[in-house]
Amino acid sequence: MYKDATIDEINEAAGKAWRAFVIYRNISLRKRAAFMMEIAAQIEALGPVLVETAMRETNLPQARLQGERTRLIFQLTSYAQACERGNWLEARIDTALPSRNPPRPDIRKMLVALGPVVVFGASNFPFAYSTAGGDTACAFAAGCPVIVKAHPAHAETSELVAAAIWKAVNLTGLPEGVFSHIHSSGFEGGKALVLHPRVKAVGFTGSYAGGKALYDLAAQRPEPIPVFSEMGSTNPVFLLPEKLKQSASDIAKIYAASITLSVGQFCTNPGLIIGPEGEDLNQFLSQLAAEIRKIDPATMLQPRIAKQFLLNRKKALEQQGVELIAASDKEAIENQGMPTIASVSAKTFLENPQLHQEVFGPYSLVIRCADEAQLLEVATHLEGQLTSTLMATVKDIQNNLDLVEAVKNLCGRLILNGVPTGVEVCLSMQHGGPFPATTDSRFSSVGADGIKRFGRPLAFQNWPDQLLPDELKNANPLGIWRTLNDELTKEAIS
Amino acid sequence: MYKDATIDEINEAAGKAWRAFVIYRNISLRKRAAFMMEIAAQIEALGPVLVETAMRETNLPQARLQGERTRLIFQLTSYAQACERGNWLEARIDTALPSRNPPRPDIRKMLVALGPVVVFGASNFPFAYSTAGGDTACAFAAGCPVIVKAHPAHAETSELVAAAIWKAVNLTGLPEGVFSHIHSSGFEGGKALVLHPRVKAVGFTGSYAGGKALYDLAAQRPEPIPVFSEMGSTNPVFLLPEKLKQSASDIAKIYAASITLSVGQFCTNPGLIIGPEGEDLNQFLSQLAAEIRKIDPATMLQPRIAKQFLLNRKKALEQQGVELIAASDKEAIENQGMPTIASVSAKTFLENPQLHQEVFGPYSLVIRCADEAQLLEVATHLEGQLTSTLMATVKDIQNNLDLVEAVKNLCGRLILNGVPTGVEVCLSMQHGGPFPATTDSRFSSVGADGIKRFGRPLAFQNWPDQLLPDELKNANPLGIWRTLNDELTKEAIS
Repeated sequence: MYKDATIDEINEAAGKAWRAFVIYRNISLRKRAAFMMEIAAQIEALGPVLVETAMRETNLPQARLQGERTRLIFQLTSYAQACERGNWLEARIDTALPSRNPPRPDIRKMLVALGPVVVFGASNFPFAYSTAGGDTACAFAAGCPVIVKAHPAHAETSELVAAAIWKAVNLTGLPEGVFSHIHSSGFEGGKALVLHPRVKAVGFTGSYAGGKALYDLAAQRPEPIPVFSEMGSTNPVFLLPEKLKQSASDIAKIYAASITLSVGQFCTNPGLIIGPEGEDLNQFLSQLAAEIRKIDPATMLQPRIAKQFLLNRKKALEQQGVELIAASDKEAIENQGMPTIASVSAKTFLENPQLHQEVFGPYSLVIRCADEAQLLEVATHLEGQLTSTLMATVKDIQNNLDLVEAVKNLCGRLILNGVPTGVEVCLSMQHGGPFPATTDSRFSSVGADGIKRFGRPLAFQNWPDQLLPDELKNANPLGIWRTLNDELTKEAIS
Repeated sequence: MYKDATIDEINEAAGKAWRAFVIYRNISLRKRAAFMMEIAAQIEALGPVLVETAMRETNLPQARLQGERTRLIFQLTSYAQACERGNWLEARIDTALPSRNPPRPDIRKMLVALGPVVVFGASNFPFAYSTAGGDTACAFAAGCPVIVKAHPAHAETSELVAAAIWKAVNLTGLPEGVFSHIHSSGFEGGKALVLHPRVKAVGFTGSYAGGKALYDLAAQRPEPIPVFSEMGSTNPVFLLPEKLKQSASDIAKIYAASITLSVGQFCTNPGLIIGPEGEDLNQFLSQLAAEIRKIDPATMLQPRIAKQFLLNRKKALEQQGVELIAASDKEAIENQGMPTIASVSAKTFLENPQLHQEVFGPYSLVIRCADEAQLLEVATHLEGQLTSTLMATVKDIQNNLDLVEAVKNLCGRLILNGVPTGVEVCLSMQHGGPFPATTDSRFSSVGADGIKRFGRPLAFQNWPDQLLPDELKNANPLGIWRTLNDELTKEAIS
């Protein structure tokens, strides 16, 4: 157990971060990238103790954690490359038109760092969305110091990663305040960080209650600041008739695996499956049931999460009209999550908001619709989601364009004939969606576009070349893409 | 006088906007651009009655309004071009890697429209930031229907422009709900609009009280939505010693003009001038005083604004330590704004938050600093601003790098040796800045980047080419820039 940070320690971290900010934001893209690569190297240099510690703290299996460490390293290195590539800067230059009436001044704009960022570690991703995870990597790339509040459930893992970051800070000669690491078991430490006037943005991955509370705190500050809370979702999957007829069994197999992957503890876990009643849906359900029965219960991240799953599952199954379809054939022991499928009619689902709530864990609710019109009705009554999925043939899509439009409104990522679990780290990824999936659907927390969360545009008007940042100099010494008088180019300005 | 919209009428407008949204957001970039060009044409076709009506309603002189109408037309046409050019879509494509382990799916992302947008007309820009102004044009470009709440002080002008928009809606065959126009003299109508569940974003230009109230309402909705409030600023100007020595008189002349331009009723009016005490500052002050005395008072936009100016000016001049330096030699008659310069020591300024408040009108406060260190102290204690200006030689800049860094934190646009008034409409413009200048420093309300305020990314995973939007199809039929596997290109995908 680590001691909770005192308010003095939190104030000191914020003060140090602010002083580091003025230096770090002006450090070249190349040096920022080198710092991020060094963090990746130092994390690799930790060796097996990192995965061993995380296994002990999170109950996640070795293979999953080794995979997540690879993901963490890939995030750091690929965001470092994106940082240096500089597209995220959105450099714009409009050159002077001295003979126009009135004359147009020279104006050049780029994203600059927002300021110190507070990152809350996620319980379900001890590496990739925690201490040196996506939010931290994006903030560093943008030129922002970071204060991490370690997740108490994997505090020791977090300490190991923090030590690797500090080594990288020292080796690359950066100011100490670029990174701070805080423990706080309750809400008070996080609250003090979010309310600190030197903090300028917040990254969070976790529950709706936690993420929304931080958003509300930040919005009520004397100076409101952006909060990027990723608060999970039920990731609805719509089964369309032709596809269902063609592939009911195959869909059931891939979905049984997706629902129970990592004991259902992914933000993109498919928690709702919506299909048209009939023989094909029955076949899907019986195949899904058969698959689910074969999957063993497994230990969840923390006793608190396992307990919550038990409660939420019970509450969901007790709702009027909800039918248990299948659960694992094996009994769950303490702290294990029991793979479970239930079913309900669309009419009942639409009338009962409780059934719209996420059951975080290996649970999915199949919604039986009387017809395709009711699929549309469900889609128009769902809340914002990270992902939505259509299992559909081309003909299904063409026959259900209204449904496709409704589903677009729901989500940040729209999957066709796949599963929502598995969030690729690449520029085209959108991990974020309409509220309540996140507090800001305009940004992604996965992929290098996430860097833009921590920048704001600053325009320089009438500055001589020698005083401009390298990113905006005539010669384009960094060789980055810039929009010059409305045309994208890497050319220098003569 | 126009009747206030009833709640039923507001609900109807929001409902119509939502129904139009599903159609309009899928209309091609070319057709959106044609719609915007048609609005511009219809506004031109209104002829002289538009400027005449605005003159009567706003007291702005003919030349200024003719200029603003030209700006309005330029915004509509240049944002239409930017809409069609498609860079704002931020199209990203990562193609499938089927042989990778695990395989990578094809993912393609672009900005899609947020939903119906409410725009509040600005009192000080009856054309360019009102009914068909920057916010409306950006929302239309992004694919969002717009509900305008007309500014009550120029409701008739707003009706004329609304009629031009409706003509364009009809001529281009768009759904009626793409544009609605609401009158509401109090706060209730605006409040109902911002709280309506079908409204997904808000654009506002006006007072801090108004803009912050809308922001708070939107943040407290069951589903919070983004509010882009531009709430003005004092636009500090820092006079550095060498520059001041070289050009005290010239600076005084251009600033006397900037402070009194349009009776000081620009958001970027320079309300604070900060310089080092001494002979050069005295020369600047006496020249500025001489210029200000020669400038006649002029009628302000509305009696309410003139009254407020009178009150705020009086309050500012009554503060302890504030010295009136000069006012126009001519008496102000009713509803006129009196050009005024006052002065105060930095020490007093730093101790009295009242002096940090904007006095909207032809008023500027000169802050006398004991030394350069005090310039820095003032810079670190100012609130967020739209613009900041440095009057400085290259040597001044090199001698005051800390000041430059502090000033960067303050603002969205950093001007060197110029005046902040005159906001160029171009892509490199940043009109927006840290709170309380705006509620979201990450976006601009001037220039085609403003379109991005009304979009959010949507990723399509594993969709066949024929079902993708044209923007993301393999052949790149729109010929737009896209980031393909991390490289910017207009190439098709083979």
